[in-house]
Amino acid sequence: MRVVYNVQMSELGDLLGEMAGLAGLAMERSTQALLTADLGLAEQVIEEHDKITDLAVVCEEKAFQLLALQGPVAGDLRAVVSGIQIVADIDRMGALALHIAKATRRRHPNHVLPDEVKGYFAEMGRIAVALGGATREILETRDPERAARLHHEDEAMDDLHRHLFKVLMNPEWKHGVAAAVDVTLLGRFYERFADHAVEVGRRVIFLVTGKLPTEEEIRALGTKVDKLTVYPTES
Amino acid sequence: MRVVYNVQMSELGDLLGEMAGLAGLAMERSTQALLTADLGLAEQVIEEHDKITDLAVVCEEKAFQLLALQGPVAGDLRAVVSGIQIVADIDRMGALALHIAKATRRRHPNHVLPDEVKGYFAEMGRIAVALGGATREILETRDPERAARLHHEDEAMDDLHRHLFKVLMNPEWKHGVAAAVDVTLLGRFYERFADHAVEVGRRVIFLVTGKLPTEEEIRALGTKVDKLTVYPTES
Repeated sequence: MRVVYNVQMSELGDLLGEMAGLAGLAMERSTQALLTADLGLAEQVIEEHDKITDLAVVCEEKAFQLLALQGPVAGDLRAVVSGIQIVADIDRMGALALHIAKATRRRHPNHVLPDEVKGYFAEMGRIAVALGGATREILETRDPERAARLHHEDEAMDDLHRHLFKVLMNPEWKHGVAAAVDVTLLGRFYERFADHAVEVGRRVIFLVTGKLPTEEEIRALGTKVDKLTVYPTES
Repeated sequence: MRVVYNVQMSELGDLLGEMAGLAGLAMERSTQALLTADLGLAEQVIEEHDKITDLAVVCEEKAFQLLALQGPVAGDLRAVVSGIQIVADIDRMGALALHIAKATRRRHPNHVLPDEVKGYFAEMGRIAVALGGATREILETRDPERAARLHHEDEAMDDLHRHLFKVLMNPEWKHGVAAAVDVTLLGRFYERFADHAVEVGRRVIFLVTGKLPTEEEIRALGTKVDKLTVYPTES
């Protein structure tokens, strides 16, 4: 019985990691599709989105079965409860990547983005994909210090997002209102993707430490780690 | 022990209903603040937002304690698991109301909205407040048919949101890019508020029936109810 239980706990973690991997992959493809107006790639993201929502259902069912049949306690109970919450965040990350792919499809064969802001989206996409990979990594390693460092990547995303808004709001903006509306929504999708990754990190910290950290505590933990890490291991 | 358990289950439901009530109230106030550029009211929403996030922590802790100490089964287990998921949705509804209040404060003493689109936001606000109230109601009554009907209100919101975009994208738009960016984001906040209310409804249906309905099933359930309900009870 105990063996079955451990296998199921481990499966839940693997499935969450797999979901995060798929959300990261969707984000990578939808960003490339957005930057190059690649309809085929956008459609691939749209077609394969069901994989993420299907996995979400599987994760929720597995978590529920674990609670119903195995009655986990202490750290295991925290892991299952956190798992239930994490599913919702990763599901949303997948939905945001889907929105980006749909915007690309909607405007095809035109490019959604004026050339002037493509650099911002290339960089926001790079950070989002890194956050997707890091989310998968922390779900597999349950490393609370790595989880806290997601906060830094999110700050880089927020900075880019703020700069993007300055470009939009600048009276020099020449691309009209329709393009500005698209850029506004797309920028928001990238920013929210990063927020959800940070939220997964906060849940992993809870899972390991039993305490849900505040934003200030995450920042302090991340800073402490930065000072201690002479040779940072993250790419 | 059983008495304590029932009291705790009932408390969790009451706290979720209370949270939904606060999110609805925040939405009501932030919409009024937005429409009238009322700084005091916007600041009240911002100052009182902690009440919602504090309640979210209390709900999560109560749900966790119930799982850890009482080992609920069957319908009660579903109620606790759904409760954990519902907390996240209501928390987000509160955050979206907060964003609207902050937009009002940011542009004060100017109005965020051009007069041309105020009618859309008055109506989207009315629907959002109704959805907040309905969310509270279904958390208290656990009525799956009422929960399914949230879908209709969400469709009304989506229609308004689509029309709003037509206004924005119309070459006749005279209010410039900065106003369009604000209107785009604010429209999105109302639409997402409604989506989260629908998600709470879906969770309540799961809680009662043990099955998480698809969007099609909700639509069918809502339609069936409409046909059967000769004297609708909702306001």
